[in-house]
Amino acid sequence: MGRIFKERTSVDEALRLFLESISPLRHTEEVPLEACAGRVLAETIVSGRDVPHYRRAAMDGYSVRASDTPGASPANPVLLQLSDSIEEGTTMWIHTGAALPEGADAVVMVEDTVTVGDMVEIRAQVYPGRNVGQVGEDIKREELIFKECHFLRPCDAAVLASLGLDRVKVFRKPVIAVIPTGDELISREITREVPPPGMVLETNGLMATLYVEKWRGVSRCTGIVPDRPESIRKAVETNKDADMILILGGTSVGKRDHAPEVVESMGKLLVHGVGIIPGKPTALGIIDRTPVVCLPGYPVAGLVALYFFVRPGIRKLGSIPEVPEIVLRKRLAAKISSKIGYVNFIRVVFEGDRVRPLMGAGAGVLSSVARADGYVLVPEHVEGYEEGQEVDVFLIE
Amino acid sequence: MGRIFKERTSVDEALRLFLESISPLRHTEEVPLEACAGRVLAETIVSGRDVPHYRRAAMDGYSVRASDTPGASPANPVLLQLSDSIEEGTTMWIHTGAALPEGADAVVMVEDTVTVGDMVEIRAQVYPGRNVGQVGEDIKREELIFKECHFLRPCDAAVLASLGLDRVKVFRKPVIAVIPTGDELISREITREVPPPGMVLETNGLMATLYVEKWRGVSRCTGIVPDRPESIRKAVETNKDADMILILGGTSVGKRDHAPEVVESMGKLLVHGVGIIPGKPTALGIIDRTPVVCLPGYPVAGLVALYFFVRPGIRKLGSIPEVPEIVLRKRLAAKISSKIGYVNFIRVVFEGDRVRPLMGAGAGVLSSVARADGYVLVPEHVEGYEEGQEVDVFLIE
Repeated sequence: MGRIFKERTSVDEALRLFLESISPLRHTEEVPLEACAGRVLAETIVSGRDVPHYRRAAMDGYSVRASDTPGASPANPVLLQLSDSIEEGTTMWIHTGAALPEGADAVVMVEDTVTVGDMVEIRAQVYPGRNVGQVGEDIKREELIFKECHFLRPCDAAVLASLGLDRVKVFRKPVIAVIPTGDELISREITREVPPPGMVLETNGLMATLYVEKWRGVSRCTGIVPDRPESIRKAVETNKDADMILILGGTSVGKRDHAPEVVESMGKLLVHGVGIIPGKPTALGIIDRTPVVCLPGYPVAGLVALYFFVRPGIRKLGSIPEVPEIVLRKRLAAKISSKIGYVNFIRVVFEGDRVRPLMGAGAGVLSSVARADGYVLVPEHVEGYEEGQEVDVFLIE
Repeated sequence: MGRIFKERTSVDEALRLFLESISPLRHTEEVPLEACAGRVLAETIVSGRDVPHYRRAAMDGYSVRASDTPGASPANPVLLQLSDSIEEGTTMWIHTGAALPEGADAVVMVEDTVTVGDMVEIRAQVYPGRNVGQVGEDIKREELIFKECHFLRPCDAAVLASLGLDRVKVFRKPVIAVIPTGDELISREITREVPPPGMVLETNGLMATLYVEKWRGVSRCTGIVPDRPESIRKAVETNKDADMILILGGTSVGKRDHAPEVVESMGKLLVHGVGIIPGKPTALGIIDRTPVVCLPGYPVAGLVALYFFVRPGIRKLGSIPEVPEIVLRKRLAAKISSKIGYVNFIRVVFEGDRVRPLMGAGAGVLSSVARADGYVLVPEHVEGYEEGQEVDVFLIE
């Protein structure tokens, strides 16, 4: 009870300290191209072949020797003989993508020809290489295609396939241990009935697990751990092989809040108390080389800690490039009051062109997130926003 | 060879015609909450219980009868007896989230108290309900939580779990048949060596499959189908139970382009020839009730058709709400030339603050997409953009 937050650290500074303590994983694994989308390349890809590997027609039409077409025009066509090889005065039909026959060096597009029996009228002059895709036009042998850490998209998988690859080396997904703590928790595996007064169904573990997986980590959720330092210590010890540990609940300064002290006793507590509302009791630390996030048990505060620390942490562990967030500019349908000295995470709902803040909802009211379409962040030094003011709205994913 | 595109339809009009022909799937399935994120709810969720289901402390502190604290202040504290029940003049320790004991109606936060032996000095007056979360504060019994078609996020899964649910009804994922066609194609399952001249490895099927899965459909990719109307017809017939059919290749007006005529013979060809470059030979149709997209075999053109028609089609089939796209405003590092009458899909790479268009790359050069970070769309009526002009850049996902 005499305990207080170590100090209050700003969100930016807390994130900086946390990310500084995290090194990207170097462990790799091979995956088939069918499973490579959304993964991060752990090797440099240099092409072993030319694509295309043959001279191909870029158009449907007739393959010719360009030197056979001087001055050809609709008024003054050149007549060539249909044949099964290309010599002086002969031509062959060719479709888009087909290999240019030996001897040919250009394609006259079909629109510039007229076929008369076994003769073809060529109605346009072509220069050598006209309508021909050269060897290596798409990709040259020895060409650098992707650097290490490239984030693989479906179109990239097709490029890798065209090089004759069937597997690529990618970074292993970060394994995130999720440890729900709290004497008041009942596992949903035991009952889904209304629990006795003072007891609640454990749901933060499920939320954390689904966000971890959405953000391209692998969640390893443990059973519920009681509010005792020894129990929490044991659970952390058991999960020290994970790439990050999340301790859910017990992060504040009450009698039953032991998570930060456990982190401090086993490693280094970097931050306890962050300048964000909700989410203030969040603690960040490192045990050996494993980053640890202590998330508040109140679900909205826990969500904020997931967004602001766990998501960037997973990104750094997995070398996953940051994607710009979707931000909408909207006017406020009502004013927002905000506490100075804290970033305020304000849930909002769309209301026509505007957004309406859900102001009454406390950190314990997860349904306020379910009802929300997005959130607005009010910076530390701002007291609030007026009705009608334009703000940045982030979507809740 | 005498064939021409039916007509050229603008992208917007083509999409409108296509979406008009698609009805959202009504088939549902039940999934555990552990697998519900990213799915679309196929039922209305009304809460069967109050959350919380008991009066809970919102703070660590002492539970009291508010009527025992009149005028309490630091200078004039009220002394209450520590006890194991609440009566006039007694108090009990309570931690955040715990059930308020019978008889108590308020909580004095720990910061406003001093404990002296078995007595507690109360240094603040509280009114009834102070620091108490009431029954149903988060969610009320019978309250509407989610409507049908709500897109489920991880935080929503936690709300559903708190209601005691363990499964929800969601819409089935759309099944998309992917049919690669072309006599020039060799399956990657047969060889990954450089094929003979004129032959290429089939990679569009892989690309389409990975995009379909990214967009929350289920891909069913067939083997390679030869460029013969009967073969294509048979493949379509076999896949008429799918929710959408993609025919890859053979969409143009050459001798070996049969896909649109097959669609026309089996159902209705809505569009053949779209005002977008690359992607012009795209065809759209409907066979019985199954929408069909004929995608150009040139990979960049195929990608464009995936983005502009397949993605919105899957969304409509799956009742998946549209998410605003990430758009960056950037200045051009070089000018863009564009063909009037067509939307031009221009691949760009980031170059510091600017974006540089990849102008030389044809529709056959998929590596230009792999090298690109995003794309710029030049509208039909615009001839191009100048160097230095600010444009909207969409990311390639």
